[in-house]
Amino acid sequence: MNIRATVWGENVHERKNAVVAEVYPDGMHTQIAKLLAEDAQITTRTATLDQPDHGLTDDVLADTDVLLWWGHAAHGDVQDEIVEKVANRVWQGMGLILLHSAHFSKIFKRLMGTPCALSWREAGERERLWVTNPRHPIAAGLPPHFELENEEMYGEPFSVPEPLETVFISWFQGGEVFRSGLTYRRGAGNIFYFRPGHETYPTYYDKNVGTVLRNAVTWAYNPQPAIEDPTKAPNVPVETALEPITERGPKLHAKGEEGLR
Amino acid sequence: MNIRATVWGENVHERKNAVVAEVYPDGMHTQIAKLLAEDAQITTRTATLDQPDHGLTDDVLADTDVLLWWGHAAHGDVQDEIVEKVANRVWQGMGLILLHSAHFSKIFKRLMGTPCALSWREAGERERLWVTNPRHPIAAGLPPHFELENEEMYGEPFSVPEPLETVFISWFQGGEVFRSGLTYRRGAGNIFYFRPGHETYPTYYDKNVGTVLRNAVTWAYNPQPAIEDPTKAPNVPVETALEPITERGPKLHAKGEEGLR
Amino acid sequence: MNIRATVWGENVHERKNAVVAEVYPDGMHTQIAKLLAEDAQITTRTATLDQPDHGLTDDVLADTDVLLWWGHAAHGDVQDEIVEKVANRVWQGMGLILLHSAHFSKIFKRLMGTPCALSWREAGERERLWVTNPRHPIAAGLPPHFELENEEMYGEPFSVPEPLETVFISWFQGGEVFRSGLTYRRGAGNIFYFRPGHETYPTYYDKNVGTVLRNAVTWAYNPQPAIEDPTKAPNVPVETALEPITERGPKLHAKGEEGLR
Amino acid sequence: MNIRATVWGENVHERKNAVVAEVYPDGMHTQIAKLLAEDAQITTRTATLDQPDHGLTDDVLADTDVLLWWGHAAHGDVQDEIVEKVANRVWQGMGLILLHSAHFSKIFKRLMGTPCALSWREAGERERLWVTNPRHPIAAGLPPHFELENEEMYGEPFSVPEPLETVFISWFQGGEVFRSGLTYRRGAGNIFYFRPGHETYPTYYDKNVGTVLRNAVTWAYNPQPAIEDPTKAPNVPVETALEPITERGPKLHAKGEEGLR
Repeated sequence: MNIRATVWGENVHERKNAVVAEVYPDGMHTQIAKLLAEDAQITTRTATLDQPDHGLTDDVLADTDVLLWWGHAAHGDVQDEIVEKVANRVWQGMGLILLHSAHFSKIFKRLMGTPCALSWREAGERERLWVTNPRHPIAAGLPPHFELENEEMYGEPFSVPEPLETVFISWFQGGEVFRSGLTYRRGAGNIFYFRPGHETYPTYYDKNVGTVLRNAVTWAYNPQPAIEDPTKAPNVPVETALEPITERGPKLHAKGEEGLR
Repeated sequence: MNIRATVWGENVHERKNAVVAEVYPDGMHTQIAKLLAEDAQITTRTATLDQPDHGLTDDVLADTDVLLWWGHAAHGDVQDEIVEKVANRVWQGMGLILLHSAHFSKIFKRLMGTPCALSWREAGERERLWVTNPRHPIAAGLPPHFELENEEMYGEPFSVPEPLETVFISWFQGGEVFRSGLTYRRGAGNIFYFRPGHETYPTYYDKNVGTVLRNAVTWAYNPQPAIEDPTKAPNVPVETALEPITERGPKLHAKGEEGLR
Repeated sequence: MNIRATVWGENVHERKNAVVAEVYPDGMHTQIAKLLAEDAQITTRTATLDQPDHGLTDDVLADTDVLLWWGHAAHGDVQDEIVEKVANRVWQGMGLILLHSAHFSKIFKRLMGTPCALSWREAGERERLWVTNPRHPIAAGLPPHFELENEEMYGEPFSVPEPLETVFISWFQGGEVFRSGLTYRRGAGNIFYFRPGHETYPTYYDKNVGTVLRNAVTWAYNPQPAIEDPTKAPNVPVETALEPITERGPKLHAKGEEGLR
Repeated sequence: MNIRATVWGENVHERKNAVVAEVYPDGMHTQIAKLLAEDAQITTRTATLDQPDHGLTDDVLADTDVLLWWGHAAHGDVQDEIVEKVANRVWQGMGLILLHSAHFSKIFKRLMGTPCALSWREAGERERLWVTNPRHPIAAGLPPHFELENEEMYGEPFSVPEPLETVFISWFQGGEVFRSGLTYRRGAGNIFYFRPGHETYPTYYDKNVGTVLRNAVTWAYNPQPAIEDPTKAPNVPVETALEPITERGPKLHAKGEEGLR
């Protein structure tokens, strides 16, 4: 098995903010890619906002099994056209993993159909993630709970659709809770949202976070061939109906006409 | 209880196509509204594509508890701005019922985050709807199954997210099946997709279809106050944390600064 | 609307344990019934373990729209036959609300098909319940979060099936989290599990808890007629098939024979 | 990867009924095992009702990654004690695949918590299975739909809990529909119900059915270590709370006392 992962990083704060630059001198995407590289079955590349097509050309997308997405400062700068291409690749079968502030990324909101809002506090407080779905593939090898001593708080309500499965729930020192690991399927694509990862803290150096990300890539990987055109609505002519039927009643569409959309 | 329903009809084929005009001389929206009026607890108004703001002004939306949507020929003519306003009202708590070809409406695709595609055939064949979730509120008063002698076929796969509940599944004479009644929740809004309703057949004169629509309106109605701004992501200052915490570590945001989005 | 609720209380600790007797001198079931009585649309009766058939005779069950269940010390003393009758009534359409330690009741485990286990600590610590599904009927009228200053801790993982919807998640002072409000549907019956309610604390005197319980009763109420025999698997004779078919191939069952089970 | 599958067959009709004996001279379990053997990564053994412990000793269960279950005539003869052991193994992480009439097996009803009833007709009619969830692992390599020319009809409503995912829906010649492929998770165990497989027809010689079963075994396999005691509800002493707390208020349990259940 060889899974081709692409780590997309906004790479803005890493260059503009001294604090972030110190924690992630080569960019967060580079460090996230390093975490994935610990699994020999994952081949990783990175892409960033400032590249042509944000590094997500048709070729790159076609060559990506699982896309990881970290963004925060520049959600609005991501071109709508690229967002649509990524959505289409997810429907075709590409896995997608949304990290932390990517809850407000265009692509996550596009695929959820909800605001994806939450409450937040940047105070470096303690976060404890509880595994609510033991032996879920994404929780493989994890202890029953693990801590991040300094994290940004995200609090409920998190306005996302009811997930397929809730894998993690976070406890925060300041009194909040959050559903920190949620799975979805959109078309043929598996989607995982994972909460931690504020850019001023060394979250992507954490051993357990690395385990989660590698597990999530393996879980999200769909080895089956891509659905060629997920948005196609094929007409089934009456002549080729699986059970013999005779056309009846008035018709809107002339024979062989395309459907309306 | 008084539920304020708005029936939105595209009202294009009714005026341009002789067949449809004969079946629905006053427009499909008018006939759908008549079905709802059989329930004294539902107050109904209609709105159509050609009206200013498609009849969906801020006032009308604020005054609508449940919106029903039928469209087919002119999905692309619905303004994106109105689609966003409708989505926001759904997140606030307005119910939304999508009818037949509204599977490809902008608003349904917006809220599902998937292509909402399917296969189809216009042959006036027999459709039989089975209640898969007996005693679900939307199936109240229905027999275990009911037939529409002439309907357009919609076939699986229907590329929508896994629903909260599957209420109806259709059998088609030509050999296909379809999940014909699906429930979702997006934000505070209840959503129901109901398959039948091709414009060249008298589906909206069917007694059982009327029962489904009235049930669906009652089910989708959320009597609670609207969520004022569903897209807001409030900051919780460290000073007002529910449990006393001390700010630690480096910060990205200056005190009182708005969050990024 | 008149909803007939039956509050089932084990009523063991209230009589054997001085602490509990002081908090609930008339029994917990009596106090829970008082909370429900604040809603004029709910008619309440109580039933206890020591009554014949634990107070859940066929007549009482037939006359119950929603059953609330509190048990802890004597789960094993509940007769299996009564458990089966309650399960059957749920499948028929009776609502069921499980309270706190009822996570280990025979009836909850029966309907979930899982161990329903969790971790726990009795230290009178602070619990804060967060509404994760704002404007859900069960959360109507509640603030975004509310506290119980002294409660027993229940911690994840809670080994229940993935719910239809997660309404509440609890934060505990000692560092744990718990999915405190979960909805299910089994047959025609709506089921709600609600976490708080340890017998040594005055939880059932709390205003917000009262709101939750009244909301939950209203939500769980299914006004439709009971499914007469939910376990029946009717044969459909070939002669009465909805579409004309001819019998083909070898048969196991003689004509008119009952199905195997 | 090596997945250890155990095919459990009731093996009653194969010996008592001439028709079935002719179709499955070595028993249905043997033929199902042959289908699995086409995947070199699956090691298969069989077990039958008439063996001691129905062939499902503690050792066999501990040595089984995925259990397939076919039963019909003798559901009632399966010992309750064995059913509980199988349920416990599922909660620990063993996969379970229920075939056709196993909808009424004790183990399926035990894990679902519902009647699992349906309507049926034995007329050798045509069944067409539609893939409703394209590129789901269980549908890998299948065409969009496939037919079984002679099958027993199962009709909705199928009284099971709302599934995690619906993979197949069947169309029947006589006019019914059925959710033929449903996934569940109970504890750490993945569960799949697959409808076809009436004993008087050669269903388990069908190429597509073989593909489904091999896919389902691979999908259901959970490579993680078993949860040792899934029914355990551990106490967390106040002294070892993750966040320092002080014991407060009245207590029911003496220090170190076991929880009630």
